[in-house]
Amino acid sequence: MLNFSREKYLKVTGGAIELREEIERVVDKIYEKGFKNLFLIGSGGAVATFYPFEYIVNSTSTIPAYAEIAAEFVLQNHKQLSEESLVILSSLSGTTEETVAAAKYCKERGATTIGITGEYNKPLADIVDFPLVNFAENDFASDSNQLVLFHLIFRLMHKNGDFPEYERFATQLEILPEKLIEAKERFEPKAEAFAIVYKDEPYHMVVGSGTTWGRAYSYAMCVLEEMQWIKTKSIHAAEFFHGTLELVEENTSMILLKGEDETRPLMNRVERFAEQYTKKLTVLDTKDYALEGISLEFRKYLSPIVTSTLLQRLSVHLEDKRNHSLEIRRYYRTVAY
Amino acid sequence: MLNFSREKYLKVTGGAIELREEIERVVDKIYEKGFKNLFLIGSGGAVATFYPFEYIVNSTSTIPAYAEIAAEFVLQNHKQLSEESLVILSSLSGTTEETVAAAKYCKERGATTIGITGEYNKPLADIVDFPLVNFAENDFASDSNQLVLFHLIFRLMHKNGDFPEYERFATQLEILPEKLIEAKERFEPKAEAFAIVYKDEPYHMVVGSGTTWGRAYSYAMCVLEEMQWIKTKSIHAAEFFHGTLELVEENTSMILLKGEDETRPLMNRVERFAEQYTKKLTVLDTKDYALEGISLEFRKYLSPIVTSTLLQRLSVHLEDKRNHSLEIRRYYRTVAY
Repeated sequence: MLNFSREKYLKVTGGAIELREEIERVVDKIYEKGFKNLFLIGSGGAVATFYPFEYIVNSTSTIPAYAEIAAEFVLQNHKQLSEESLVILSSLSGTTEETVAAAKYCKERGATTIGITGEYNKPLADIVDFPLVNFAENDFASDSNQLVLFHLIFRLMHKNGDFPEYERFATQLEILPEKLIEAKERFEPKAEAFAIVYKDEPYHMVVGSGTTWGRAYSYAMCVLEEMQWIKTKSIHAAEFFHGTLELVEENTSMILLKGEDETRPLMNRVERFAEQYTKKLTVLDTKDYALEGISLEFRKYLSPIVTSTLLQRLSVHLEDKRNHSLEIRRYYRTVAY
Repeated sequence: MLNFSREKYLKVTGGAIELREEIERVVDKIYEKGFKNLFLIGSGGAVATFYPFEYIVNSTSTIPAYAEIAAEFVLQNHKQLSEESLVILSSLSGTTEETVAAAKYCKERGATTIGITGEYNKPLADIVDFPLVNFAENDFASDSNQLVLFHLIFRLMHKNGDFPEYERFATQLEILPEKLIEAKERFEPKAEAFAIVYKDEPYHMVVGSGTTWGRAYSYAMCVLEEMQWIKTKSIHAAEFFHGTLELVEENTSMILLKGEDETRPLMNRVERFAEQYTKKLTVLDTKDYALEGISLEFRKYLSPIVTSTLLQRLSVHLEDKRNHSLEIRRYYRTVAY
């Protein structure tokens, strides 16, 4: 696969999986103390990675969960935050200003804080009560993050009595990285074909629902817009029919991220519409990937990581065919603002 | 003002204000029974209208509040919904399929339901425990809805001990429609000038934060996209710096919706950025409108209705200058999907 190191990928994802014991120790300690609600706080790609987990907790568990944008959260005075709150923050570099400020803010209010990050001795790891550290290059950070969260969030739900299958789930996560590589390989020709056909496309709609909505939101914003300077509209499948549909013409590019959770019928409805009204329809469907050894009942939870692992291949081919490095920025870390 | 009937506007908004006594009776009855959390459920423009109120409740009150997309909500199995939940739903026509289905779903689960709608004897009013009905034409529906919600949500917070100023607030709402007309009049030349300059603009970024985020989201989707077929990206001011900023060039149109809540510094930051990097910057700032007789401390709550009342003028002038009726649709109620 183009610009892909199997070895590096397995090292990064393996690092996340190796955190299992530590995560379980942390969760057990937190449960001893007890907590009343859960905040998931980040900025950009990090908060987007939390959206599927907010959805999953709300669907599976009695723990009230809130995913929040860091910079807004420190201003809003959210009344559900208290010393009985558990706060999970995430920043790969450990230096994202707003997220570091949110970590401080939550600590000052007595909440218990966990930080998912790639680096020790950086502000986020230094501030939080429990840093969970796994080094990851930018391109594999999302998969690493999600693997940490699958252990962390599902262990929390397990301790809360909402997810008795945790042991089996966590064991299956061990083989997931290999299965994700197989999925990437299977997707590879499609990723390249997409990049060839759409390299000059000026605008994409990216549609998701349930556990794939956060992936649609972040792929549009953090890859297509930030890294490729292509205009996008990310839109929830249920909301699509309340306005955005009117833009669709036969040359409108639509990218549908289909997962396997309860909201799949919402995506099917958008797909049926798109099939009729545009010639530029791309469907990424997690169902097309076998993930052998993963139980059927866990697949719906894994839709976001399958989606993001595939999309990462799309990015590599867009970079190549568009001759536009994923690393260049007009503004970010280039000018002050 | 172009295509504006002062009489009709005062009739519609007056109708919402006249619901005050009924709303207070409903809230008092609900408080007798008690409730544990609050769900705000709608689709498209209706759920977007709820977003500022979700923000306000989370910032002001200890009542846990969740704004949810109707079609997703009925599939998700949200574990916080119970017979101790209070659910507010909204649909102007009273027939929005997903919202009606959500009302049924919540009732079946024993939740207490309130329906904000324009019509009696339509499914929404028939299903909910407490219909709050005010007839409104499409163009004034958002202001009507918000006026009902200001009474309803702030009375709830008042009864919960979080908003002792309710009496004074509700009294001031009586003069608000007149003040909103004055704001529209003041904005009128700017609205017309915008439509002249931007009538052929193919893409706008619409930015909001806190209580104006929902307005940014819905103006982009329900007016620019649905009614004018213009591409948009609605983006939260805090998230703008995590991707979307990279798209900005000197000919990128940015529309900033500045309100007066705690998150205003986030908007200021985007404004400073935009001033430097685009020549096509439009700022709607609620601070520019006097609203004489409204206390300073209430202005932050009213930012969404001030914003939407101004934006409504923008729509009228876009329709006129673009010669594109706000009523025509390619798909909605035109084809089956």
